[in-house]
Amino acid sequence: MNSSIPTGFFTQSHENLKERIYTRIRQDLQRIEAEIDRNLSSSVPFISIVGRHIMGSGGKRLRPLLMILSARLCGYQGNHDAALAIVFEFLHASSLLHDDVVDNAEFRRNQPAANTLWGNPGVVLVGDFLYSKSILMTVGYNDIRILQALSEATTKMAEGEVLQLIHADNLEIDEQEYLEVITRKTAVLISAACQIGAIFGGGKPDQERALGAYGFNLGIAFQLIDDTLDYTGDVNELGKPVGNDIQQGKATLPLIYALRNGNAAEKKKLKELFSADQIPSERFHEIRERVTRSGGIAYARELASSYVQSAKEALRIFPLHPTKEILLDLADYVICRRT
Amino acid sequence: MNSSIPTGFFTQSHENLKERIYTRIRQDLQRIEAEIDRNLSSSVPFISIVGRHIMGSGGKRLRPLLMILSARLCGYQGNHDAALAIVFEFLHASSLLHDDVVDNAEFRRNQPAANTLWGNPGVVLVGDFLYSKSILMTVGYNDIRILQALSEATTKMAEGEVLQLIHADNLEIDEQEYLEVITRKTAVLISAACQIGAIFGGGKPDQERALGAYGFNLGIAFQLIDDTLDYTGDVNELGKPVGNDIQQGKATLPLIYALRNGNAAEKKKLKELFSADQIPSERFHEIRERVTRSGGIAYARELASSYVQSAKEALRIFPLHPTKEILLDLADYVICRRT
Repeated sequence: MNSSIPTGFFTQSHENLKERIYTRIRQDLQRIEAEIDRNLSSSVPFISIVGRHIMGSGGKRLRPLLMILSARLCGYQGNHDAALAIVFEFLHASSLLHDDVVDNAEFRRNQPAANTLWGNPGVVLVGDFLYSKSILMTVGYNDIRILQALSEATTKMAEGEVLQLIHADNLEIDEQEYLEVITRKTAVLISAACQIGAIFGGGKPDQERALGAYGFNLGIAFQLIDDTLDYTGDVNELGKPVGNDIQQGKATLPLIYALRNGNAAEKKKLKELFSADQIPSERFHEIRERVTRSGGIAYARELASSYVQSAKEALRIFPLHPTKEILLDLADYVICRRT
Repeated sequence: MNSSIPTGFFTQSHENLKERIYTRIRQDLQRIEAEIDRNLSSSVPFISIVGRHIMGSGGKRLRPLLMILSARLCGYQGNHDAALAIVFEFLHASSLLHDDVVDNAEFRRNQPAANTLWGNPGVVLVGDFLYSKSILMTVGYNDIRILQALSEATTKMAEGEVLQLIHADNLEIDEQEYLEVITRKTAVLISAACQIGAIFGGGKPDQERALGAYGFNLGIAFQLIDDTLDYTGDVNELGKPVGNDIQQGKATLPLIYALRNGNAAEKKKLKELFSADQIPSERFHEIRERVTRSGGIAYARELASSYVQSAKEALRIFPLHPTKEILLDLADYVICRRT
């Protein structure tokens, strides 16, 4: 898979795969939505308003869905899964709210970012509430192993957010450091959703490990693709300006690759282009052009494919099962998704 | 106790009581410091630096101390208490960091506020880390009742922070709404520290309830006095500008009382004085003068005394015990403290 394949190919396979996955998860998504809605009520109406804004606007519900599917793959058949599953959406939303404050973001998912509507103080504090609430909801499940996995994940995530901030504007970050950042900021929570699904579903230790590994590899691939979409995506589909990371001077793998593999003149030029505080759009187009030509986007996509492969292999201990099929399809979808 | 008693009286009793308490808790404070230090290390050095700044600069360690004393009063004699006790200092520090961002604070405890040194993004994220870490540390104690009490408290706290933000600049807030805010922002965590101390120490249900009530009442009194110190305190002792709340237009009980009890002209004048975005120091002196004359500070202190009384009464189910004496002294100290 490289950047010269016509995009029409991806569009079609993307739409087919999306539809095939969607018909099998529709009911789960509905249960997730209902549960989110039910738990967003608060005696403080402002919390519900900001919460509904960040959680009601087109999220993929990937994390709660993975938790539900992981539990089911381990044999769970009840309907108490949704209330635990949404913990992962609450944690994700809390982290998005704080990210928007940290990045001073203007848009998210085709909507004004929460901080532009309600200011940083309110957004920081509602983020804190969603986080606390998610721990409280988890405690209700009365399982210390779940709490252990969850709090290990959130602590690593928080460290990862700080790491990412420290590396902001750092064009010297190498591939390994970048992978450490995306592991913590994305893979760790997705992995925890799958692992905790396995624990909740009564999975054996090897099933718990396998689903944790599936989620970890899927999470890395998901973030790698997210970072390429910042170069290649469509603003209307993405719901945020393409080139957001680039304009903030964030170095992700496509650029890291271009800097590593370009000759001295090319490196110098790219660093110059990145050096401004605000990168104007003509400069963004030139950066995108140079990074694409370097093969950086294709490289990141190939690396994502190899992580998807590892995610799928992690599931080989499970026999054929409709839920396993969905998880395998979801892994493929991560690569060909356009939003 | 009213505002016409010479301050020298308080100074002396304050110093004596402080010394008497301190000699009996010195070793516990040392254990708390050592444990905080040990747990502030992180693979991300920036986290340790900001963490040490917010936790190393003159905090009273009231919350961890109350947890340790509560456990001891219920019969605990080991030394695994300190590592659980510091959870309450981590949570408190996390909340202080986010408060400083929310309030755009310039100073805390005679030091530049963290946000002025490292910027809002880093401070928000280190706050998130300290919070996650405190949950992780608690999970290590493997007791779901402790986690239940703790996560209920932090969720109420987070709601309280939002409530306080909504009421910022609201001069119409009444005493009941104000008490609701300080319950959530201060009393709930102090109460949880005492209650969890009781659970950890193997206390019976009525002991757990009694210590929770002690902490709750102590917490309300503590915040009431904090709010009067914004009017009466000494800038060098407090470590932050006197009149901080006033200058931010925050209405606390002394002002609420003055507005409630003043005649129409006095109310109008006070609201005018409060109406500016930035309140200059001559205006601050006039507000302080008017609020003091209204009896608002004496009223808040009297209310604090009645909460301290309730705190002490809550301990009556415990027989005489050196630890009980310390808790009773701490309750008295809350009233006469000057910082």
